Amino acid sequence: MSVTLNTKFTAGFIADHEFTSIEPEAARAFRLLKSHTGPGSDFLGWMDLPVAYDKEEFARIKVAAARIQKSCDILVVLGIGGSYLGARAAIEFIKSPLYNNLKKDTPDIYFAGNNISTTALNELLSICEGKDLCVNVISKSGTTTETAIAFRVFQSLLISKYGEKEAAKRIFATTDRRKGTLKELSDRCGYETFTVPDDVGGRFSVLTAVGLLPIATAGIDIDAMMQGAADARAQLSDESLFSNDALRYAAARNILMRKGKKVEILVGYEPYMLMLNEWWKQLFGESEGKDQKGILPDSVVFSTDLHSLGQFIQDGSRILFETVVNIQNPGSTFEIPSDPENADGLNFLAGKTLDEVNKTAMLGTLFAHTDGGVPNMILEVSDRTAYSFGYMVYFFELACAVSGYMLGVNPFDQPGVESYKKNMFALLGKAGYEHEREQLAQRMK
Amino acid sequence: MSVTLNTKFTAGFIADHEFTSIEPEAARAFRLLKSHTGPGSDFLGWMDLPVAYDKEEFARIKVAAARIQKSCDILVVLGIGGSYLGARAAIEFIKSPLYNNLKKDTPDIYFAGNNISTTALNELLSICEGKDLCVNVISKSGTTTETAIAFRVFQSLLISKYGEKEAAKRIFATTDRRKGTLKELSDRCGYETFTVPDDVGGRFSVLTAVGLLPIATAGIDIDAMMQGAADARAQLSDESLFSNDALRYAAARNILMRKGKKVEILVGYEPYMLMLNEWWKQLFGESEGKDQKGILPDSVVFSTDLHSLGQFIQDGSRILFETVVNIQNPGSTFEIPSDPENADGLNFLAGKTLDEVNKTAMLGTLFAHTDGGVPNMILEVSDRTAYSFGYMVYFFELACAVSGYMLGVNPFDQPGVESYKKNMFALLGKAGYEHEREQLAQRMK
Repeated sequence: MSVTLNTKFTAGFIADHEFTSIEPEAARAFRLLKSHTGPGSDFLGWMDLPVAYDKEEFARIKVAAARIQKSCDILVVLGIGGSYLGARAAIEFIKSPLYNNLKKDTPDIYFAGNNISTTALNELLSICEGKDLCVNVISKSGTTTETAIAFRVFQSLLISKYGEKEAAKRIFATTDRRKGTLKELSDRCGYETFTVPDDVGGRFSVLTAVGLLPIATAGIDIDAMMQGAADARAQLSDESLFSNDALRYAAARNILMRKGKKVEILVGYEPYMLMLNEWWKQLFGESEGKDQKGILPDSVVFSTDLHSLGQFIQDGSRILFETVVNIQNPGSTFEIPSDPENADGLNFLAGKTLDEVNKTAMLGTLFAHTDGGVPNMILEVSDRTAYSFGYMVYFFELACAVSGYMLGVNPFDQPGVESYKKNMFALLGKAGYEHEREQLAQRMK
Repeated sequence: MSVTLNTKFTAGFIADHEFTSIEPEAARAFRLLKSHTGPGSDFLGWMDLPVAYDKEEFARIKVAAARIQKSCDILVVLGIGGSYLGARAAIEFIKSPLYNNLKKDTPDIYFAGNNISTTALNELLSICEGKDLCVNVISKSGTTTETAIAFRVFQSLLISKYGEKEAAKRIFATTDRRKGTLKELSDRCGYETFTVPDDVGGRFSVLTAVGLLPIATAGIDIDAMMQGAADARAQLSDESLFSNDALRYAAARNILMRKGKKVEILVGYEPYMLMLNEWWKQLFGESEGKDQKGILPDSVVFSTDLHSLGQFIQDGSRILFETVVNIQNPGSTFEIPSDPENADGLNFLAGKTLDEVNKTAMLGTLFAHTDGGVPNMILEVSDRTAYSFGYMVYFFELACAVSGYMLGVNPFDQPGVESYKKNMFALLGKAGYEHEREQLAQRMK
């Protein structure tokens, strides 16, 4: 298996009988999922996606990616939340966080339309000057403010740069299959479209066209990624948390939460984990953070952050547990050189690989943090291949859904995301929000 | 004043009499600082730094930065924790998070020696191929593992590329004034050195040579930055939290913590805030996270993360409060274009600036989150100039020190950072750690 859970370091925090005792809850949660009888069961498309995905569209994604690779220097991907985090996580994890700065034969990829920053938009426009561009706009409705504003700007830029006909070949829309402003606009303008499935929520959508088109454009093997997810689906089918590690992870989280561990920190030891951490934070935070409940998802990259948040984790308020993602095979190697003078006293490391030292820092930290009262789980991941990424995505999605049902929430909705939007539209004078506008005006007096 | 605290949105969470009631504690904490009689008082150099800094060295920093600008394509900055977060935060905040990707007449700046990642090191080496390089190595002792390993690699790269004599002109060491391996090595090899002051801890060191040399190299006005800090020092001198906003911020944090708000989220609405958030997390986390106490510092960038962590903040477990950093003047402008067809329904925004929409998203979110039970403070910051950055740094440092004394900790030590290092050295077979090595070996059986 490409991803396994190692609970060696939780021994002092979770007794075996606690796992036994909570197992029926985990099994019940998993059965709710499989029988499509739990809350939010209209959004379970992610469960069978790795085998039941649209093969015709998948083939079109590869063709489109090849066309994008050939025709531009920069692919601008417009989307927010689940419409960008998965693709960005995959590209950083499998390729590099410095993807745009490395020499390569695939286009640079910039993610935009995920904020309302003047600076960010102006800077990206200046980076795009004189470059050949393609755009992938990702929005189920087409009306998401951040993404729609950016698309207005980039659509008009491409039309003025290439003319309507050529621009149409350079714009790819990932949106609703049938309806919505973006779908209608795309059909009218002749943009190729891909589908955001009706039964897959944004945060579960990385293995749909939402994630796959940018990922394939970066030169990543999306067949291998789907195979990894398919194997995870097959191998994580058991209802026992003693044989199904996704269930065991879900169970351990709930045991720790009920003991007052209110924050889970996802820990990586590689800078290429940064956006995977962010993807994971959306997945768990948006699925579980409701009904005034949930474990707050947080993240760090060590050893970097051992020199910033390390002190708090070691000795601060005891509300934390950590889940360490250990990438077993680093993919490349670097041997620490010897120095005849040994001025820095580092020769005890000479001849060791850098990854040996990194893994030893991890082991030393596992001992230190558990000694300090912070429960630690380890998620062992074989490597940073597309296959393992797909496997890990499915592992986390399944664990998240099971954990959410154990917590007693609907893991597939996000009602709280509308609250700020409603106020924003009211304050901006959007039609239909007159009543809210008046109420807010009263409060601002 | 360049930075002020707006507590309008805490009204429902903190009564006026609570501020009055806690004021003597805040005043006492500030007096402990000013009289140098609190714990950790050997590390109060940051307090007078904005006026008492070493003017001769400051002038040398500017000369060195000009030389680096002229002689290289890439400045590689080696340092971890406080030895890189401040400079990186400043460059991203004042220049751009895409600094390296933008056209400019200053060198690219890469931060390394802050992890043990094989991939990160190999990638940076490939980026450096064929480029002219300078190195700024930052370590008080010279023995910090992450930084020392990277320095071994880059020192030897520069020597093999340029020869010893020319390499010596391209290596700049920021280290102890008198002693330590890096100081000795630098003197022997003829590297220009700058000082990590004895009485300024890493996380308080951004306005020393530690931060200033990379910051000046990026073309930032370090005189203005010091002036901002000096003005903050002069204006934040009062012992009343009704006239000193840094004290008021420290007081509000402690009031909220004592009511069960265990996590503070620093909120920015600009991607250029990301590393400032990380700098702030080290400052507060490392200062307060001890004796099994402290507020866990967390951070987000909105509106981006309203579509990932927004749900949790709105409706999840009620352990949070937010501090929103509002950059009043965005520095540049962008007007949202009108579209004759209005296909996306966005014409109600046409003619507005993007920043108006961003600020309205902020206001809408402030209402939404406080309605959801999350106390919100606003830190109003005039703009993203070097002056305001310096002012804000001093504001946060002072607030952090006062808050730490109110919490009853020593805000200036970090004993917990040693725990993982001790284990790591033992496991790696470093001389002097034989006993610990044997103990860990027993536990690993």
